Amino acid sequence: MNARLPIGVFDSGIGGLTVVRALAARLPHENIAYFGDTARVPYGVKSVETIAHYATQITTFLLDKQVKLLIVACNTMAAVASQAIRDLSPVPVLDVIDAGARAAVRATRSGRIGVIGTIATINSAAYTSAIHAHDAAVQVVPRACPLFVPLIEEGWLDHRVTRLTAEEYLIPLVQQDIDTLVLGCTHYPLLKPLLQEVVGGEVTLIDSADTVSEQAAALLASQALANPGTAVDYQYYVTDVPQRFQQVGERFLGRALAPVHVVNW
Amino acid sequence: MNARLPIGVFDSGIGGLTVVRALAARLPHENIAYFGDTARVPYGVKSVETIAHYATQITTFLLDKQVKLLIVACNTMAAVASQAIRDLSPVPVLDVIDAGARAAVRATRSGRIGVIGTIATINSAAYTSAIHAHDAAVQVVPRACPLFVPLIEEGWLDHRVTRLTAEEYLIPLVQQDIDTLVLGCTHYPLLKPLLQEVVGGEVTLIDSADTVSEQAAALLASQALANPGTAVDYQYYVTDVPQRFQQVGERFLGRALAPVHVVNW
Repeated sequence: MNARLPIGVFDSGIGGLTVVRALAARLPHENIAYFGDTARVPYGVKSVETIAHYATQITTFLLDKQVKLLIVACNTMAAVASQAIRDLSPVPVLDVIDAGARAAVRATRSGRIGVIGTIATINSAAYTSAIHAHDAAVQVVPRACPLFVPLIEEGWLDHRVTRLTAEEYLIPLVQQDIDTLVLGCTHYPLLKPLLQEVVGGEVTLIDSADTVSEQAAALLASQALANPGTAVDYQYYVTDVPQRFQQVGERFLGRALAPVHVVNW
Repeated sequence: MNARLPIGVFDSGIGGLTVVRALAARLPHENIAYFGDTARVPYGVKSVETIAHYATQITTFLLDKQVKLLIVACNTMAAVASQAIRDLSPVPVLDVIDAGARAAVRATRSGRIGVIGTIATINSAAYTSAIHAHDAAVQVVPRACPLFVPLIEEGWLDHRVTRLTAEEYLIPLVQQDIDTLVLGCTHYPLLKPLLQEVVGGEVTLIDSADTVSEQAAALLASQALANPGTAVDYQYYVTDVPQRFQQVGERFLGRALAPVHVVNW
């Protein structure tokens, strides 16, 4: 395989740009092709069948673009369509749930891990399964937090409404003595400072964007797939250019968001 | 035209069920075919082109089902695709924006009307245009409230987070001396008691579900299209059965939500 090929990263929308940001920091010489299904976002409340159908459509699109590695940056797709994506792909596949689960098991001392995410991610129990695959003795305390995504997209990252919402969602988890909290949605890293305050300094936050980037770096090194070039190219594919797209996207990405190609499905 | 045919009602998701509820109360002998584009909801943040494309697709679907009247229960579609829908339809078309604008102009005494809705609805300035078409002297104060829909879908109808959010969005409107507030999104009627408390008893809330049902009743009477039968049939078409669908839908509808048909687009 050509090591100069890009890494394919995909998400239901723009949340996966937090993974692109972490990859850019960890692997600054890699090319990236990003796909965000902005016309059909959010996936978090859709049925399993619909999510799996969309996931295979996007996987096929990125494979046609010749990527050397696929990263499922969408927790919802990783939760319900991970096997379907792996079955389709001749290139290695990493996903945020497996990465987050491994990191959480390494981090916990008490053996009690909290997991937060969208309704679909939490209902799928995918994190619980992934964590138990690594350590069956760990106790997992899950909680769906459907208001975090809209609060983040509104830009209320340090707002008393967001703080109250976080308290409502997270205090019950803290009361169950978790010492590790998995941020099971690519949007959530933007709330890290506020969430850390709400759960207290004793609880370790696991950011899947960071952990999946670590996995990608290890995989590229072990398979001699690191890009030998230095001229880095990023391409962004979306199914719609929604209102506030540039503004919200750049908040996630931490840099200019371009070039953006619109795919009309 | 056959007066026994159903009224077609459509929305981007389940919010339009508040219009079905109002129609059921005002016109209990009418048949209804409801379409909710639950796989692609929400429309409120999508581009104008994408919303217009979806709106024409749904209009064609309902016209194929033989409806005698179309009601655009989605403020976002009414805001950006109203003309495209009317151009397609051989049957009369009513929409929540025109209905809300007329009712607001009738209600205001001070001539200062607040309008709240999704980002797409507010950015379109459709309410401002519709209000000015009836009375060019009225001053319109618009405000996008993107957190209301997720708060309602979370079921936090009387929660301190919702109250704080409403204060943040609405106090600036009250400070601009509005005496009428148009609820420019079909979800918002579920927040009526809380919104009334936040804006105070002096401000009249305009609920488009009620006003468009009044318009429908008047139109059916004037065109001799009222259903002469009494056995009422409701059919619900959706593009996905999302998680919490039944629970949230019945909260909107105020009755059992059945039969539901899934349209696979």
